[in-house]
Amino acid sequence: MQISGEMIIGRTTVRGQQGTVKAIDPSRNEQIEPAFGLGGEEELQQACLLAEQAFDKYRETSLEQRARFLETIADRIMDLGPALIERAMAESGLPQARLEGERGRTCNQLRHFAKVVRDGRFLTATLDSRLPERVPPRPDLRLRKIAVGPVAVFGASNFPLAFSVAGGDTASALAAGCPVVVKAHSAHLGTSELVGKAVQKAAIECDMPEGVFSMLIGSGVTMGQNLVAHRAIKAVGFTGSRHGGLALVRTANARHEPIPVYAEMASINPVFLLPGALENAPKIAQAFADSLTLGAGQFCTNPGMLVGIDSPALQQFVDAAVEILGGKPQQTMLTPGIHSAYTSGVDKLSSIPGVKLLAKGLGGDLPCGAIASLYEVDADAFLANPEMESEIFGPCSLLVRCRDQEQVLRVAEHLEGQLTATVHATGADIGFAGKLLPTLERKAGRILFNGFPTGVEVAQAMVHGGPFPSTSDPRSTSVGGSAIDRFLRPVCYQEVPAELLPAALLDNNPLAIPRVEDGDLVWNG
Amino acid sequence: MQISGEMIIGRTTVRGQQGTVKAIDPSRNEQIEPAFGLGGEEELQQACLLAEQAFDKYRETSLEQRARFLETIADRIMDLGPALIERAMAESGLPQARLEGERGRTCNQLRHFAKVVRDGRFLTATLDSRLPERVPPRPDLRLRKIAVGPVAVFGASNFPLAFSVAGGDTASALAAGCPVVVKAHSAHLGTSELVGKAVQKAAIECDMPEGVFSMLIGSGVTMGQNLVAHRAIKAVGFTGSRHGGLALVRTANARHEPIPVYAEMASINPVFLLPGALENAPKIAQAFADSLTLGAGQFCTNPGMLVGIDSPALQQFVDAAVEILGGKPQQTMLTPGIHSAYTSGVDKLSSIPGVKLLAKGLGGDLPCGAIASLYEVDADAFLANPEMESEIFGPCSLLVRCRDQEQVLRVAEHLEGQLTATVHATGADIGFAGKLLPTLERKAGRILFNGFPTGVEVAQAMVHGGPFPSTSDPRSTSVGGSAIDRFLRPVCYQEVPAELLPAALLDNNPLAIPRVEDGDLVWNG
Repeated sequence: MQISGEMIIGRTTVRGQQGTVKAIDPSRNEQIEPAFGLGGEEELQQACLLAEQAFDKYRETSLEQRARFLETIADRIMDLGPALIERAMAESGLPQARLEGERGRTCNQLRHFAKVVRDGRFLTATLDSRLPERVPPRPDLRLRKIAVGPVAVFGASNFPLAFSVAGGDTASALAAGCPVVVKAHSAHLGTSELVGKAVQKAAIECDMPEGVFSMLIGSGVTMGQNLVAHRAIKAVGFTGSRHGGLALVRTANARHEPIPVYAEMASINPVFLLPGALENAPKIAQAFADSLTLGAGQFCTNPGMLVGIDSPALQQFVDAAVEILGGKPQQTMLTPGIHSAYTSGVDKLSSIPGVKLLAKGLGGDLPCGAIASLYEVDADAFLANPEMESEIFGPCSLLVRCRDQEQVLRVAEHLEGQLTATVHATGADIGFAGKLLPTLERKAGRILFNGFPTGVEVAQAMVHGGPFPSTSDPRSTSVGGSAIDRFLRPVCYQEVPAELLPAALLDNNPLAIPRVEDGDLVWNG
Repeated sequence: MQISGEMIIGRTTVRGQQGTVKAIDPSRNEQIEPAFGLGGEEELQQACLLAEQAFDKYRETSLEQRARFLETIADRIMDLGPALIERAMAESGLPQARLEGERGRTCNQLRHFAKVVRDGRFLTATLDSRLPERVPPRPDLRLRKIAVGPVAVFGASNFPLAFSVAGGDTASALAAGCPVVVKAHSAHLGTSELVGKAVQKAAIECDMPEGVFSMLIGSGVTMGQNLVAHRAIKAVGFTGSRHGGLALVRTANARHEPIPVYAEMASINPVFLLPGALENAPKIAQAFADSLTLGAGQFCTNPGMLVGIDSPALQQFVDAAVEILGGKPQQTMLTPGIHSAYTSGVDKLSSIPGVKLLAKGLGGDLPCGAIASLYEVDADAFLANPEMESEIFGPCSLLVRCRDQEQVLRVAEHLEGQLTATVHATGADIGFAGKLLPTLERKAGRILFNGFPTGVEVAQAMVHGGPFPSTSDPRSTSVGGSAIDRFLRPVCYQEVPAELLPAALLDNNPLAIPRVEDGDLVWNG
């Protein structure tokens, strides 16, 4: 399929007239054809108004219709074949196998949300029956959740498929019944166009109302802020930098009607190496180095911090990690901007008093090549300087050496909110791990034992979220089935005639979904 | 029980030293003894630090312990006997029967949340089992919701029991596992102290950690803002004016770590009188007048707006309403401030061009007496002037006369977010009501047919919430069992050893709660 450089506005494609921009191949640091037209206020208005007009109709599509739409998007993405993978490779510098895996993840995610939609639990159908004899009488009350309205989605640079045009935010918003307006990420415009057209095709094929999906291209700051400020938009999904996320939060809060922003921002994902676990120091060091350098370290859940108690076993871990990291090759980063931010982040860290270099990966001459690095600092210095808590996006980690268990607990308590916190522990460590756990529960959205945080499973029990500043809203997840809850709000129907009730709330439960009736869960699954 | 004028800080009582304040009896516009000591920064710090220290222990109390605590609070409130009702009457001007009813509602609410806690559904326990054969293998993943942290609660003037110290926000936060710091409402300080001490007693009796509950007295703006700004506070419950609610939202957003504010603010609760329903014009007029003047109109759900299509039947409704309202006696309002705001709100409305007076209730010489009033305006004028959408807290309503169905739909679409929207309709109106419904779903948290919105049932299916500006967050309710969800956030446990897993997530489901396992709801209820 030809890449035309156009935006997607409902059922049409439109070329923006506010200048042009090209994608960049970071492996060569060169522009790639074709030029994309930058859109402006006019296309933004069209996309938002179409989304607004589509909303009432789209949110009342049947569960089956909506599930089929999600599955059809997955099918149309697969239909793009190798052209999609080739374009994504050129735009992101990511290898073929990774992008094929990510495509699979993207399609599985859409299919997972199709199942979530069919299950109907997200509707939270709840019925309280009339109590006419009570004083005062209780009316008939029924609750369901409905979609909040059109959602603005901002793709992430590091997942050009799974967290972009048809990624997690789009899938969960569409599943909830929300039309979606995507702002295409400038780092992968061609990939965005291909996927956007697949979504458009699926929408037409499934007879969805026009406006259920649009995709805009525009100057990052202006277009993004105007999109979030638009009256028709009722929620925002974002994955990216703290700077970018907080700017959108400010815009959303300054609206006449403030709206929720789900911004997944930054996290250093501390890994606690408890003494017993260090019996396996070399094995853990290998797994750590692999996790740190996976995808050039460009994951929200990259292990950017290690915490251990000074001991010969910890030194054994360090020695092994230093050796393995020293052999890790340079890797192309996603964009020249990300590469330069990584380089200056590492420089800044290395210049902090008390921070010492432990290991550097192999150098090379890739124009946007990241060199893996591991630093160390003692816990006293770490606790005294909050700068060391800043995320460095890329394959860099900092080992914090503690004197004792007490200091490990203090470091944990000192941390900002995180997407993940990891504990390496054996049976001998259980007592100490139990002391650490309550703090980690307060600090992180996901707690994992004896693994590494990269690799975020798309599952019902996944939480990819966490306290501020890892996200702007810790009450939800951006990965996994419960992400649908972010785009819903409850509505109560009191004495509404059966002819007007939504199917989910009819007496005979025609959708056969689990419901809470008079306070009790009723389900015949 | 003697009222001492003290604050409650954990297990102690403390007299504030920053000046004194007395409650006012609005029926006489005179101060009531005793003087309450105003607290300051020191007590705020103590309360917040105790809450922070109590958090980890309190959130891990068993479901049964927490349910018993809520029930014991209800018992200790009932133990206060007539002294509580007498003090609340003196401070609020509300009649005995209403306050006895409200006490019952408050205790039922606490008991309702005890049931919600025991049911354990709020934990959202979700398990995805290990898939070791898959490539890559899926780890063991388990999710539960945990409490967000200490919650600041601001009582409402109009529900000195049910939406104050041990009201809905406190009950739902405690149920979720959050310690609570209440800022006592200055309009009912004595009532607050009595109830606060009942909560304190229950906490001691149930061996809850100190700091699970504190109650501060202080200068409204300073103490309130400082409480919301305190690092230990992780969420806020508020019921009151738009001005007050938005000030707290701004403070919460300006924190280093922004926190959610659940502010239930203002609503005019439109009532749509469809043509068929007006066959019963006199009966509806009677019910309307009773709802409008109930409790001197001091309900968030007071019907402040009627919408009808010009017709002889509508005129019949108006004539009946005018006659009934003309005979409604003056009623004491909650505070001199609320009374003067009501008077000036009515004056302002009556001075808007196109607004005509239809009916006034009886006058009198109550110092804080509200006179019921009904105004009308034609829909063209209403649509042209957003001032008429401002809530007037008290027994005042505005009838918007429309030309036709089309204009009714335009008026509905024009409205801001509401707590409730009401439709009066018969079978003949179903087609039109069906056209109106999607708009009302977008605009309101509760839609009711053939009733009036006052009377907010404490039930699982209730939604007392709605789009901005009726609340600051439409994703939740402040009345009913689902209010517990506001104070929770999800945490995922990946490969966490069984010794460290919370009981809700153990393999054998020892809490016997409904869970989602491998995507399917598993429950043997």
